[in-house]
Amino acid sequence: MSEKIVLFDTTLRDGSQTGGVHFSVEDKIKLTRELDEMGFEYIEGGWPGSNPKDIRYFEEMKKVKLKNSKLSSFSSTCLKNARPEKDRILAELLHAETPVCTLFGKSWDLHVKESLETSLEENLRMIHSTVEFLKSRCDEIVYDAEHFFDGFKANPEYAIRTLEAAASAGADWIVLADTNGGTLPEEIRIASRAAFAAVDKPIGIHTHDDGDLSLANTLAAVELGAKMVQGTINGLGERCGNANLCSIIPTLSFKLGYETLAPEKIAELTRLSWLVSELSNKPHQENLPYVGDRAYTHKGGIHVSAVRKNPRLYEHLSPELIGNKRRVPVSDQAGKSNVLQKASDLGMKIEDVHAKSIVAKVKELESQGYHFEGADASFELLSDDLTGRRKEFFKVHGFRVHTWENDKGEIWSEATIKISVPEAIAGGHTSAFEHTVAEGSGPVEAMDRALHKALENFYPSIRDIRLTDFKVRILDEEAGTKAVTRVLINSTDGHLHWGTVGVSQNIIEASWRALIESIEFKLKKYEEKS
Amino acid sequence: MSEKIVLFDTTLRDGSQTGGVHFSVEDKIKLTRELDEMGFEYIEGGWPGSNPKDIRYFEEMKKVKLKNSKLSSFSSTCLKNARPEKDRILAELLHAETPVCTLFGKSWDLHVKESLETSLEENLRMIHSTVEFLKSRCDEIVYDAEHFFDGFKANPEYAIRTLEAAASAGADWIVLADTNGGTLPEEIRIASRAAFAAVDKPIGIHTHDDGDLSLANTLAAVELGAKMVQGTINGLGERCGNANLCSIIPTLSFKLGYETLAPEKIAELTRLSWLVSELSNKPHQENLPYVGDRAYTHKGGIHVSAVRKNPRLYEHLSPELIGNKRRVPVSDQAGKSNVLQKASDLGMKIEDVHAKSIVAKVKELESQGYHFEGADASFELLSDDLTGRRKEFFKVHGFRVHTWENDKGEIWSEATIKISVPEAIAGGHTSAFEHTVAEGSGPVEAMDRALHKALENFYPSIRDIRLTDFKVRILDEEAGTKAVTRVLINSTDGHLHWGTVGVSQNIIEASWRALIESIEFKLKKYEEKS
Repeated sequence: MSEKIVLFDTTLRDGSQTGGVHFSVEDKIKLTRELDEMGFEYIEGGWPGSNPKDIRYFEEMKKVKLKNSKLSSFSSTCLKNARPEKDRILAELLHAETPVCTLFGKSWDLHVKESLETSLEENLRMIHSTVEFLKSRCDEIVYDAEHFFDGFKANPEYAIRTLEAAASAGADWIVLADTNGGTLPEEIRIASRAAFAAVDKPIGIHTHDDGDLSLANTLAAVELGAKMVQGTINGLGERCGNANLCSIIPTLSFKLGYETLAPEKIAELTRLSWLVSELSNKPHQENLPYVGDRAYTHKGGIHVSAVRKNPRLYEHLSPELIGNKRRVPVSDQAGKSNVLQKASDLGMKIEDVHAKSIVAKVKELESQGYHFEGADASFELLSDDLTGRRKEFFKVHGFRVHTWENDKGEIWSEATIKISVPEAIAGGHTSAFEHTVAEGSGPVEAMDRALHKALENFYPSIRDIRLTDFKVRILDEEAGTKAVTRVLINSTDGHLHWGTVGVSQNIIEASWRALIESIEFKLKKYEEKS
Repeated sequence: MSEKIVLFDTTLRDGSQTGGVHFSVEDKIKLTRELDEMGFEYIEGGWPGSNPKDIRYFEEMKKVKLKNSKLSSFSSTCLKNARPEKDRILAELLHAETPVCTLFGKSWDLHVKESLETSLEENLRMIHSTVEFLKSRCDEIVYDAEHFFDGFKANPEYAIRTLEAAASAGADWIVLADTNGGTLPEEIRIASRAAFAAVDKPIGIHTHDDGDLSLANTLAAVELGAKMVQGTINGLGERCGNANLCSIIPTLSFKLGYETLAPEKIAELTRLSWLVSELSNKPHQENLPYVGDRAYTHKGGIHVSAVRKNPRLYEHLSPELIGNKRRVPVSDQAGKSNVLQKASDLGMKIEDVHAKSIVAKVKELESQGYHFEGADASFELLSDDLTGRRKEFFKVHGFRVHTWENDKGEIWSEATIKISVPEAIAGGHTSAFEHTVAEGSGPVEAMDRALHKALENFYPSIRDIRLTDFKVRILDEEAGTKAVTRVLINSTDGHLHWGTVGVSQNIIEASWRALIESIEFKLKKYEEKS
C-alpha cells in the first residue's frame, strides 16, 4: 500500500491574508463543508484572537458536524513574561472548542530579539508552557515553527531547541515553516534532516511561494519523511501566497505514488479551485498548473494536431484526473460528456443529439462572459430552451430603473416593469399587461419588488423566494466603465436552493436577467411538483 | 569571479504562444530593444516559417543594431525523407539573416512514431543533416532537444543519440527541453547527468510550468553544469507557461551567486515585467514572485509592525534589488503603523496625533464596508479631510440615473447631474448650477460622461482621466439584494495611476462616490503641480 500524506488546509486562515480577499462567515462555513466533503484531514478555520469575524465563525461551526475533517483554530504562543492561563488570545482559542489547536512560535533568533524583543530563553519558555497549557485542554496540538528555515540558517542550534521545546511539552505535530518563502530546496533538505534527527514526532511542512519554489520545497521535505503538508487552495496567502494544494495533491498522488485524497475527490479539484476563486472574488488564474483554464489549452498548430493523435504528446497528465479539460480555441471539440454528466447530475434527461447543440450554445455564451459553474438553474433553463421544453410563464415588455440623489443626499431607487402572462393564467383579468412600480434600497431590490408585485397574483408560489446571495464580477476589467459584468444570484424557497446568471455590458441588465431566471426556475419547479 | 549563466529569452517566440497574447511587429521590435538594453545574451525573435508577421519582424530587425544581444530565429528540422536544401521553412529561417539559428528536433521516440510518423533512424538523419546544413550558413546553432526528458524516460538510449546527432553535426549549444512541463527535479537530474556524460558541448535548459516546478527544474540542471537558461518574461508561454526569467534571474544572481544580468539591470526587472504585461495586454499578475504587486505587500498587523522594525523579518530579499517596492495596505487588520507607513509612502506628512484619528475613522468606515487597500487616493482625500486640508473643487446637488429596456429588448442608461463650482472658479458664468445629461452603455459610464460634461469647462485637466479598472464587491452577500456594495475604480491620466472606493447599499451610489473621488483626486494633484 502506498504511503499516506496528511493534508492540512489553511485557505481560511493563511489564505485569508491574501490582498483583496475577504471571506464572509457564510463563505467560510460553505468552504469548510466543501473541504470536509473532499476529505482533507485538517481544516484551519481562522485565528479567533485576531478578529471578531473568526470568533463568530467558530461559534457557528459548533453546530456543524464534519464527516472527514478535524477543525483547527490558530494562535501564537503566550506573551512574554506572562502565563498562558492569563492570555486573552489563548482563551479565545479554547473558546472555539475545536478538536485541534494550531500554535505558532518563533524559531529565528532575529525574530525573538527584534520582533518579540525578549531573550532566547524566554521564547523557549513561552513555547513550552503554551504547548503544555493547551495540551491539557485540547485533543491535538499542531505546532508551527515559524521561520524555521531562516532560523536554522542563522542559528541552527537554537532553531532546533525551539522544536524540542514544543515536542517535549506534548505537541502532536511539528511543522517546519518557510514563512518568508525564500528558501531553496537544498536548504530545506539540510535543515529538515536536522529536525528529523532531533525530534521524535511526526513532522509537517509549510511553504510559501516568494521564491517560486513552494512546491519544490514541499516535495523536498516529503521525500525526507514529512507526513503532513500544509497549503491553500489556489495558493492563496500573504504576498505571493502559500504552497498550492491544487498542485501538491496531483504531484504527490499521480507522480510520486503517495496517498492523499481519494482519486474521485481529486477529480473535483478543478471545481473546488473555481469555487474558491468565486468566494474570494478573484478571477480564476488561467495559467494555474493542473486546474487553470489554460493548463490544457493548446494554441500552437503543431500541438493541436499532435494532441488529436495522442494527448500524451503534449500533456504531462490527463486533465480528467483533476476534473479539468482539454481546450482547443476556435474549434468545435467535444465537452459533450461534460454536458451529459451535468444534466444527469441535475436529474435531467438529455439525448446525445441535443447535448451537442447545448455544448455549442454554452461555448458561445462562455465566450460572452457567461459561466455556469454557480448557475445550475440557468443551465437547466438553457437546456430546456434548446430541447424545446422551456415554458413561457410570463413575457417581459420592458423595464425602467431610476436611481437619484436629492438635495439632502438621500438616495432612492425605483423600478417600473411591464409584463404579460399567458391567456390561460391571466383568466378573466381585464388588462393585457401588468404594469407595476416599486422602490428599493438599490436598483436590484426595486426590480425584484416590482417583479413580485406584477407576478404574485398569478403565481402565488413565488412569495417564498428569497435571494440569499448576489455576486458581481467585472470581466475584462481594464475596459473600465465599458467592461462586461456577470451577476450571479442565489435564491431559495426554504427547500430548494438555485443559482442563476446574467451577463451584460450594463450592470442593471445583467442583474435583471439573473433575477428573471430565478423566478422562472421557481415556477418551473413548482409546476413539476404539482 | 562568479560563474556566468547565459540567458536566452524566448518571450517573443515561445511566449507568444500564450492564450490571448498577440504581439504586433512594433511590439516585438520594442521588446527586442528593451531586452538588448537589459543585456540578455540571446533573444529568440520568432519562427519565420510559421507566420508572415515573424517574417516581417525579421525583415525590420535587419535595420536595428543590437548592442548586447544576439538575435535568433527558430525552426524545426527538415521534413522526413527530404533534404534541408529543399526545405521552404529552413529557407525562411536563413532569410532572417540572424547571427544565431535555433533549431528544434525530436528526442522522444513516441513523437517520432506518432507525430512525425517516421522511423527512429530517419529522425536522426533529419537532425544531423539539418544542423550540418545550417552550420555552414549561420554563425551559431542552438539545438533544442524537444521532449528530451520525456524521451529519456521512455527510451534513454535513443534520446541521447538524438543529442549526439546534433552535436556531431556542429551544434554550438545542446538545450534540454521539458516541453510538456511535467518532469520532476529528480528526473531532470538523472537525465541531465546522462546528457553531460554523452555530449561535449555547452548545455542549456528549457522548462515549462505545467507541474509548478519550472524554476526548480531549471536550478536542478544549472547545478549540474548547464550554462544556458531559456525562459520568458512573466512566464508567458503555451498552457501554464515557460520558466519565468523574472524568478530565474534573481534566484541565480542573489541566492546562488551566479553572474546573470548586471545588478543595475536586475533592478529594472519589475519595470520590464510591467512592460511585457502591457504589450501582451494582460493584467499584471499580482502574486508573481519578485515582480508582482503583492510580492512585498504586508497585510497582517503583526507582519507590518515587524517589517517597520526590520524588513528582513518578513522579506526574503530586498524589493529594491529587482526594482519592486514594499506596500502596506490600510486594511481591517491594520493599526497606526500601517497608517504612518502608508502616509509616508504617499509622500504625506501626518503627525502622530492625526494618525490616531485617521485609524479610528478608517476602522469606522471599514465596518461599513469600506476598504482602502486598492484605494490610495480615497485614503489621501480622507486624511486631508481629517487634517483640515481637503479643498472643495465642486459640490454635488443631486444626480439621477435611468436604465430602461424597450419593447425591442434594447437597454439604455442615461444620467443627469447637478453640480456647482466655487465662485472663484465659476467666474462670470451665468448660472449657479451646472445641469448636464449623458448616455452610456451602463449607468456608470453615463454618470462618468455627465460629470465630465459638467466639469470640463471649469477644469480642463480632467479631460485626460481614463478609468482603467472597475471592480464590484458585494459585502454581506447573504443579504441578497439588500447587500452592501463596494466599488473600486482605478484611473489614470497617462502619468499617475490612482484608486478610489465607494460603498453603499445602492450599487449606483457606491459607483458614484468612487467616480467623484477619482475626479477630485486628479484636481488635487493638478493643483499641487501647478
